[in-house]
Amino acid sequence: MTKTPLTLLGLGAMGAALAEAWLAADHPLTVWNRTPARADPFAGRAAVAATAAEAVAANRLVVLCLLDEDSIAETLADVDLAGKDLVNLTTGTPARARARAEWARERGARFLDGGIMAVPPMIGVPGSGGYVFYSGSPDLFEEHGATLAVPAGARYVGEDAGFAALHDVALLSGMTGLFAGVVHAFALIREEEVRPTSFAPLLADWLTAMTPFVHGLAERLESGDHTTGVVSNLAMQSAANATLVATAEDQGVSTELLAPYFALEERHVAAGHGDEDGAGLVDRLRAG
Amino acid sequence: MTKTPLTLLGLGAMGAALAEAWLAADHPLTVWNRTPARADPFAGRAAVAATAAEAVAANRLVVLCLLDEDSIAETLADVDLAGKDLVNLTTGTPARARARAEWARERGARFLDGGIMAVPPMIGVPGSGGYVFYSGSPDLFEEHGATLAVPAGARYVGEDAGFAALHDVALLSGMTGLFAGVVHAFALIREEEVRPTSFAPLLADWLTAMTPFVHGLAERLESGDHTTGVVSNLAMQSAANATLVATAEDQGVSTELLAPYFALEERHVAAGHGDEDGAGLVDRLRAG
Ligand SMILES: NC(=O)c1ccc[n+]([C@@H]2O[C@H](COP(=O)([O-])OP(=O)(O)OC[C@H]3O[C@@H](n4cnc5c(N)ncnc54)[C@H](OP(=O)(O)O)[C@@H]3O)[C@@H](O)[C@H]2O)c1
Ligand SMILES: NC(=O)c1ccc[n+]([C@@H]2O[C@H](COP(=O)([O-])OP(=O)(O)OC[C@H]3O[C@@H](n4cnc5c(N)ncnc54)[C@H](OP(=O)(O)O)[C@@H]3O)[C@@H](O)[C@H]2O)c1
Repeated sequence: MTKTPLTLLGLGAMGAALAEAWLAADHPLTVWNRTPARADPFAGRAAVAATAAEAVAANRLVVLCLLDEDSIAETLADVDLAGKDLVNLTTGTPARARARAEWARERGARFLDGGIMAVPPMIGVPGSGGYVFYSGSPDLFEEHGATLAVPAGARYVGEDAGFAALHDVALLSGMTGLFAGVVHAFALIREEEVRPTSFAPLLADWLTAMTPFVHGLAERLESGDHTTGVVSNLAMQSAANATLVATAEDQGVSTELLAPYFALEERHVAAGHGDEDGAGLVDRLRAG
Repeated sequence: MTKTPLTLLGLGAMGAALAEAWLAADHPLTVWNRTPARADPFAGRAAVAATAAEAVAANRLVVLCLLDEDSIAETLADVDLAGKDLVNLTTGTPARARARAEWARERGARFLDGGIMAVPPMIGVPGSGGYVFYSGSPDLFEEHGATLAVPAGARYVGEDAGFAALHDVALLSGMTGLFAGVVHAFALIREEEVRPTSFAPLLADWLTAMTPFVHGLAERLESGDHTTGVVSNLAMQSAANATLVATAEDQGVSTELLAPYFALEERHVAAGHGDEDGAGLVDRLRAG
């Protein structure tokens, strides 16, 4: 069976990993990179194009993995995209992805935006858990989904071209909070006779055990009833905050990472919503 | 086999759950609560003491589950503790637990402090995942560990009476960050055509998949080498922060919960540590 040929623009850390994955799966590949030396490792295995325009002309399916939105604008400014299937894996905001989809449509190309939920070592490794959110043209995804799923799992999240980026950013934002909590937790034990590697499994198990609370929270958001099914409500949680703050101070750890969450909780409790949980905070964070 | 008799002071939401668990396991139990009506459900099944002093006199093993440190001081002010095995499950700071251990020692009691990692519905439910950190007298824990493990798993974390509270607070602090990230993530999708219950499994899976990074972070803290084994370094992460901030602004979501973490990352990168990951931030959070 002959594999779909494709073009990849951008051979940075992520682009190079994607290229290797498609080559390993025997897809005929055309590559281009602004700094030509980065294409050298692919000479003989892929067609190395001298210009972006030449690379785009070579195949109908064209994947972008560049630094940012500005690099896309620069790279594709004068390139003919009529009849192309453009897949953008460059990280950006939902708004930029929607604008890019419109821009592609005006140039006669079908468009799919992607958000890569993986680091390069997870690309091309079955079972690594990495995957890519896709949104935009359903026809493009139906036609090329199998090819796009070669480097990492492909999850289509809707026709709105902004949804891949929205899901990507939402997950990274959730992870940022997780990182902040973990940094604070390790800082608390830092000067004590507690080994970080003994503490880590306790922390990891606890966070893994607590994560399923997101399902109840989602149900409450969807029903609009923010109190049913709440096990540990904000009034109880905010009563415990004083102990968390006092402990941080005793341990010489700044409360800067957690203080805004405590303040948000306290604002919501003061507004009479002590019987809710995080579901109530979601709208409070929007409202201020 | 006759079960160890014990006394429990405090029949609030948590105390009542503990009492039920010990009764279900056939431990002879003496209870006391400041507001006597709360002991009514235990009449006939447990000995209900009229005063805290009477309750303490009834058994060698005495468990406290009161509101806070002040309620302990008030309850035990004039009570004879000589020869008692005192186990404090009231939430507090490590410093308060250490002071309480010293106070108990002066009164001739052995002392163990505990930190309950569970909500009342998880108490007395095997496999609920709930457990209690214990620290302090190793002799007390050796003698009564099995009795203490009846309501929920018992994990002894050291002779320092402050360690149970330290572990408790550190895990709750990590969870606070997780909660903050989750609230921000749901706020981002709130006004979009994305169902919270469709988004929740993606978020939960992602956070669960990311949590094991704590092991690498712990190894780097322990070795003192903050760069080896780093997959996604702070320079890369902080480059992505702009997209997270811009998306939040576009979606009408305050960045207040995540901004301090972004700022901490950027301070550490500006100080020349862009090749580190969260391990580097742990000491930066202490140093300011
Ligand atoms: N690495 C990850 O862990 C990861 C994870 C998820 C998503 N992503 C996303 O994947 C994309 C690529 O990341 P990466 O890690 O491969 O980055 P990288 O290693 O820094 O590579 C950046 C790529 O963009 C090119 N580029 C930069 N400015 C350009 C311009 N003005 N015109 C044309 N090309 C330009 C670079 O070409 P030169 O060689 O000429 O500089 C290089 O090919 C980014 O949007 C990133 O957010 C990365
Ligand atoms: N509930 C949870 O999810 C949970 C989880 C982990 C840890 N904990 C900890 O467990 C402890 C008890 O929590 P809880 O949920 O049972 O709280 P609760 O339902 O509010 O009960 C508080 C208990 O403390 C007593 N009390 C308050 N002030 C007192 C005083 N000055 N003198 C004597 N007794 C006094 C109350 O007696 P009255 O009936 O007379 O008011 C009641 O028995 C707290 O330290 C809490 O942080 C609770």
